[in-house]
Amino acid sequence: MVEHRPTFVTNLECSLTGEVYEADQVHGQSSAGRPLLVRYDLDAMRTQVTRDEIAARPTDLWRWRELLPVRATTDIVSLGEIETPLVPLLKAGGANVLVKDEGRLPTGSFKARGLVMAVAMAKALGITRIAMPTNGNAGAALAAYASRCGIETIVFCPADTPEINVREIAMQGARVWRVNGLIDDCGAIVGEGARQGRWFDFSTLKEPYRIEGKKTMGLELAAQLGWTLPKAIFYPTGGGTGLIGMWKAFAELEALGWIGSERPKMFAVQAAGCAPIVKAFEDGVEHADRWEDAHTVAAGIRVPRAVGDFLILRAVRESGGRALAVSDAAILDAVDDAARQDGLLLCPEGGATLAAYRQALADGLVAAEDSTILFNCATGLKYPMPEAPQALDRHALIDWDAL
Amino acid sequence: MVEHRPTFVTNLECSLTGEVYEADQVHGQSSAGRPLLVRYDLDAMRTQVTRDEIAARPTDLWRWRELLPVRATTDIVSLGEIETPLVPLLKAGGANVLVKDEGRLPTGSFKARGLVMAVAMAKALGITRIAMPTNGNAGAALAAYASRCGIETIVFCPADTPEINVREIAMQGARVWRVNGLIDDCGAIVGEGARQGRWFDFSTLKEPYRIEGKKTMGLELAAQLGWTLPKAIFYPTGGGTGLIGMWKAFAELEALGWIGSERPKMFAVQAAGCAPIVKAFEDGVEHADRWEDAHTVAAGIRVPRAVGDFLILRAVRESGGRALAVSDAAILDAVDDAARQDGLLLCPEGGATLAAYRQALADGLVAAEDSTILFNCATGLKYPMPEAPQALDRHALIDWDAL
Repeated sequence: MVEHRPTFVTNLECSLTGEVYEADQVHGQSSAGRPLLVRYDLDAMRTQVTRDEIAARPTDLWRWRELLPVRATTDIVSLGEIETPLVPLLKAGGANVLVKDEGRLPTGSFKARGLVMAVAMAKALGITRIAMPTNGNAGAALAAYASRCGIETIVFCPADTPEINVREIAMQGARVWRVNGLIDDCGAIVGEGARQGRWFDFSTLKEPYRIEGKKTMGLELAAQLGWTLPKAIFYPTGGGTGLIGMWKAFAELEALGWIGSERPKMFAVQAAGCAPIVKAFEDGVEHADRWEDAHTVAAGIRVPRAVGDFLILRAVRESGGRALAVSDAAILDAVDDAARQDGLLLCPEGGATLAAYRQALADGLVAAEDSTILFNCATGLKYPMPEAPQALDRHALIDWDAL
Repeated sequence: MVEHRPTFVTNLECSLTGEVYEADQVHGQSSAGRPLLVRYDLDAMRTQVTRDEIAARPTDLWRWRELLPVRATTDIVSLGEIETPLVPLLKAGGANVLVKDEGRLPTGSFKARGLVMAVAMAKALGITRIAMPTNGNAGAALAAYASRCGIETIVFCPADTPEINVREIAMQGARVWRVNGLIDDCGAIVGEGARQGRWFDFSTLKEPYRIEGKKTMGLELAAQLGWTLPKAIFYPTGGGTGLIGMWKAFAELEALGWIGSERPKMFAVQAAGCAPIVKAFEDGVEHADRWEDAHTVAAGIRVPRAVGDFLILRAVRESGGRALAVSDAAILDAVDDAARQDGLLLCPEGGATLAAYRQALADGLVAAEDSTILFNCATGLKYPMPEAPQALDRHALIDWDAL
């Protein structure tokens, strides 16, 4: 299904110190305990591929092959990673608001982007057993891709993770455990097992390749918008891999000469009940403290501590954007409005981006005429919806005017 | 988002008698009480568009504009109808089995294809109030598209329709009623209300345009397979609009000279607990009797009576295919295998096609080397999954070897 193309990967480097690591080796984090970033020979690449060639290829994630770390086509484990559509949100958003609907990806969320890449690399590097903490969607994507290529997976999620996520993970062949704690408590178990040599740790930003998959959101946006970028991006921010990834993608595209130096304002959206990045942003600091008593209806962004905090904050600040917190009530209103008015069922995290957009608009941080992208990171179908209990007895007299 | 292109629509005609009806008028069924089919000036079209031009366009449903009934681009109500991917089902299926994953469409099912077209035409023709009987997915798609363009909708579903479907319909702005009966009982209410002039009847094959949307499954398949068709197609058959639509699409593509005269064997897949088409096929008759006491886990194909029965049976027979019934146990096994082995979570109706394929393979109706397409008509996330109850106490001593 996927044609062979060369990758231009050269090496990995520490996101904090710049220390260089060899490609094609098993790596977790850097020796400084920070995320590793994959680097490419963009000078060579710009002489060998044009953006028009990319644009003419089938529009899936693998069109970006030269900018992805997978070398051998046979290591690609695909479930059909389509380019996700941009859906106008005319009524609930406005004339210049597009939703990038990531719920269309395999397993119904943007986590598929990161995990398809990380699993392909795990396959390439001979890893056979993987563990991961998850609020639901990442675990589902890991389970699907790993099962598909025979890698064993063990997934840990907070005890109150929605039932549908836990079942989906199990259905797709992972062993899944509900843990009495939050995602970082689950992460501690995964970390301990990894230290014991029981499995490879696939936590957010603790292996180098999920970010490479997630950066395709930025690559796709540029291609979909005719090699321009929007004025503003609202991104639901838990671990923040996607935001960091897009920021990296924009830099790579500029280095290739495929886009200019203009950047969108990046808005990192969090829930008021779990807003460590917002607090760090407002405090003007580089790292975020753990958020205590985290709670929000948007489980995907209930991440008390993000290992890539400094990378998120750096991107948001460089972009002239903000970190914004929204209430659960505003999130639920936004979900309701988008579904009722525009027929688009967002996930709560997607709803959070609409709520944040509305707040930013009211506060003058964006203008109604600014082209704006909201990320809906998963299908709304995975989340609880209010009851709709109307019953009609077909054997009784029907009150037609009441229908 | 969508460029203007001319449609080559000429007229409508009765699928039974051939009686001609004018295009661009509000129509339900023909005067003979049969479905109306849309006809195009394919001779004119073949001189003005090439298949290569179509192939070079953005890969969504609207690339087929010339073969679709919508005239004005402003009538298109889109939620991002992407081309759905073909996903290999290597382990649970076989080397030559591809799943067309229709769960990636807006509202998570192939019903979006039919409804995006029917709603656009309703908008074009000034219809303002629509009612529909549904087993779930069609109602969700109708609600989403109709709400998006301000058309009022009233949806009736069997009392035991899964909660998620009913809630989704309501969230997306329709008024939804649970009725103590099956889908044809719901259809009777819709029909009665339509006769009273309360709304327009959007039941399967009772308006002419859902089939035009559904036929894009056949158009897409041809384009995705390089203007060839597979040897066999397994299609979950309730109302059968998609099967009839694909058969029509293949005829149109051949008339355009874009494919040859070879056709896939069409396998209409039903559940053993509701198999009216299978019975009619085996009895060698043209019409199917209502199936009494219909029951199956695959609610989407729990359709006791299909108004297009003769069109389904005709296509299946002309193709050299079969109508096949599979047990609920075989369906659930198939869903489980595809998820566990290939990481692809099928809906029960999609599982039914895998179960039927396995049966057909065992019975020698298809060969393992035949290129085969299974239709997964909706995301598996909308359906009940088995419990996955493992809990882990992070404060207790962890039995690592048991994880």
